[in-house]
Amino acid sequence: MIQDLLARRGELSDFARRLMGERAPDIVEHLNEKPIEDTIRLLGGLSDEQVVGIFDESGLEHPGALMAGLPTARAAHILIAMSSDRAAEVFRQLDEPVRAHLFKLLDADTKASVSRVLRYPMHSAGSIMTTEFVSVPANWSVAQTLDHVRKVERSRETIYAIYVLDPASHDLLQAISLRRLIAAELDAPVLSAAPQTAPLSVSPLTDREDAARMISKYDMLAVPVVEDRKIIGIVTVDDMIDAILEESTEDVQKFGGMAAIDEPYMQIGFTSMIRKRAGWLAVLFLSEMLTASAMQHFADELQRAIVLTLFIPLIMSSGGNSGSQATSLVIRALALQDMRLRDWWRVALREIPTGLTLGAILGVIGVVRISIWQEAGIYDYGPHWMLVAATVGSALVGIVVFGSLAGSMLPFALKRLGFDPASASAPFVATLVDVTGLVIYFSVALTILRGTLL
Amino acid sequence: MIQDLLARRGELSDFARRLMGERAPDIVEHLNEKPIEDTIRLLGGLSDEQVVGIFDESGLEHPGALMAGLPTARAAHILIAMSSDRAAEVFRQLDEPVRAHLFKLLDADTKASVSRVLRYPMHSAGSIMTTEFVSVPANWSVAQTLDHVRKVERSRETIYAIYVLDPASHDLLQAISLRRLIAAELDAPVLSAAPQTAPLSVSPLTDREDAARMISKYDMLAVPVVEDRKIIGIVTVDDMIDAILEESTEDVQKFGGMAAIDEPYMQIGFTSMIRKRAGWLAVLFLSEMLTASAMQHFADELQRAIVLTLFIPLIMSSGGNSGSQATSLVIRALALQDMRLRDWWRVALREIPTGLTLGAILGVIGVVRISIWQEAGIYDYGPHWMLVAATVGSALVGIVVFGSLAGSMLPFALKRLGFDPASASAPFVATLVDVTGLVIYFSVALTILRGTLL
Repeated sequence: MIQDLLARRGELSDFARRLMGERAPDIVEHLNEKPIEDTIRLLGGLSDEQVVGIFDESGLEHPGALMAGLPTARAAHILIAMSSDRAAEVFRQLDEPVRAHLFKLLDADTKASVSRVLRYPMHSAGSIMTTEFVSVPANWSVAQTLDHVRKVERSRETIYAIYVLDPASHDLLQAISLRRLIAAELDAPVLSAAPQTAPLSVSPLTDREDAARMISKYDMLAVPVVEDRKIIGIVTVDDMIDAILEESTEDVQKFGGMAAIDEPYMQIGFTSMIRKRAGWLAVLFLSEMLTASAMQHFADELQRAIVLTLFIPLIMSSGGNSGSQATSLVIRALALQDMRLRDWWRVALREIPTGLTLGAILGVIGVVRISIWQEAGIYDYGPHWMLVAATVGSALVGIVVFGSLAGSMLPFALKRLGFDPASASAPFVATLVDVTGLVIYFSVALTILRGTLL
Repeated sequence: MIQDLLARRGELSDFARRLMGERAPDIVEHLNEKPIEDTIRLLGGLSDEQVVGIFDESGLEHPGALMAGLPTARAAHILIAMSSDRAAEVFRQLDEPVRAHLFKLLDADTKASVSRVLRYPMHSAGSIMTTEFVSVPANWSVAQTLDHVRKVERSRETIYAIYVLDPASHDLLQAISLRRLIAAELDAPVLSAAPQTAPLSVSPLTDREDAARMISKYDMLAVPVVEDRKIIGIVTVDDMIDAILEESTEDVQKFGGMAAIDEPYMQIGFTSMIRKRAGWLAVLFLSEMLTASAMQHFADELQRAIVLTLFIPLIMSSGGNSGSQATSLVIRALALQDMRLRDWWRVALREIPTGLTLGAILGVIGVVRISIWQEAGIYDYGPHWMLVAATVGSALVGIVVFGSLAGSMLPFALKRLGFDPASASAPFVATLVDVTGLVIYFSVALTILRGTLL
């Protein structure tokens, strides 16, 4: 037992030694693979500076649980030294009473910046901003500003921009890049290095996706977050990449027909997994029950023409597939702001001819398939097989048109009602199209086959 | 006629005047909404500097067609002044003979950098790199380097890093941030400002997604592209954001069951749209025909127990939906490298109990639904309704397990075979699950109902 423990300790400190030469993101990758208790023990063997570096990485998993595992005094010390957006993330994950206890131990500055970040809703620019940025008053010279960067800000690895404030009101006046600052005359006022246009900024309540779009459109390294004309933080391009990756993961998961999950697949618990998936699955199942009701309604026709049932799965799936294509196109176009809500009718006008063409292509394939099977003697669809083929072909056109139209309009409808258009999942569309698809199929059958099979 | 033309000219020059005060990305957004001919005419009224700024924007649509519309001498002049990655993009879109003709007019430097970028395959780091970067020999001092940045590089808006080369071999030695350069002693050699670790780099053939992952993991502003230890370009964080957005759009479109499209929905032509969608739709349709074959196989049973057909859509869609959930989870986890190919069996071991639980939940809902309809007299499922309910419930468990398993394994299988795992679309999974789902349903029915209904 004791030997086991010693061996384990030896192994851990070896590991700690090996980590020394590595970059923080690589250390974090190793730590993420270890059980939380092991990581806590490892952190005990590292310097404060190293631990701060590790907690500052956005890739670190379970930072709340890890912080709670450190001695309280050390935890407070590390939280004060960390960047405020990461410290806020730790507090988001902490439970009471540890949370309140640790918060009390912070200094006034850290308390203010952490609670400021925590105040803003999820997915807002304010919730991912960092409150550490370089600002100087407008009455400074270029030389003073460079000196400030050189001495005061030497701990920062990257300086995204220097924000120039009105000396009296502290309003944000300009954002200056380091490159411009270096190129400016040393005795000139710092504003002489500023570009001619006013700085772009976002409000703390701006959606982080909109902030990302601004950063990407204007090729910025950081965008200032401004409230009442005062700069309260910056959202940086690297936070943005994390946010974009997270958003697109959520979009794919929602499109797959489930609640978005925040954790990696391998780490999420069994019950959370079931909860995230069962909800939508049950809702879809309940809606899909309408197909059983539709079928019941046509039970007599089915009894008389059992041949019709053979093509039900084929026809339903074609509607679902064409709908799923149209939905994925529109969701993405809305997300990238290639189109707006008011463009819905243009999309509808495109989807109708597209659906007709696609439906006609599938319809022809369907008719050919039935004819070959019949003529080659593979299966006998009965004496009226040509009418059956005509029914299948015409129904396909109708269903593909309906699928394309419903699939493309659903994201617009959801957005109009205030939901995320990405909630228009492939299964959601398929379910919507299935019931109507059956009704279309049987209505076409009743029209074409009345007097012969029906 | 003449008046129309004059009015049109007046309108265009008004527009040109209005654009003056705006930022290049905003100008580009306006231009994208105009017909190409109008934009070409507008460009004629702008200064070369403005036109270069417009072509340097990655958001500009149809840069090839626009460049081809300019007078040849002016086009060459602008291509030389543009950033090389954007110039290469223009050449990618140009057709012969314009392409060869314009290329001949470039200066030697631009020719070299454009053809270097064009040489690399799509989606590689080399194909999106810019060949404009700041490099200095290692025997320079900090002061010399700062002077170089101040004088030579003043046209650049952003300097991502300064690359230090071996004076003799020109091998890349270090990457230094502007912040570090400013903080260093002026007479010290430039390498004194370098970090202790060797610079991270990618090869020109590295997939752009891997380059993006490196930039995001290490919070870099740019990553050098290195061939034979020489730096040949840099991939910047803003190019990366564009690449990430493009990749995730492709993923969503593929998941929706269609070929990825490069152009915005509103701009793609009708025939390209049909081509992009009809291919997959027809393939899925042909595969889904197997359901008709499966149904034909069970036609006798169907004839005897028409009640079974009522639940076919419900059961098939449940399999497809659970499969689609599992696929979206695994595609995303593979894309973010949360899991690797060798993890497939871990995923399988998770999906089996998950599928059993989800299937049981749906099974219970199904049985309750049938019992209520029967007992309340809404529909009569016949004297053996309890056995029918048992069939539906058990089949649901089997189908959801199969759906979850097939849906989660398909991306692994595609990746193993060298395809993009994101090609495992929701419709693809649904099709895969539908045929098997029917076989499971009828097999369960034959077991439970033999001697009564069948």
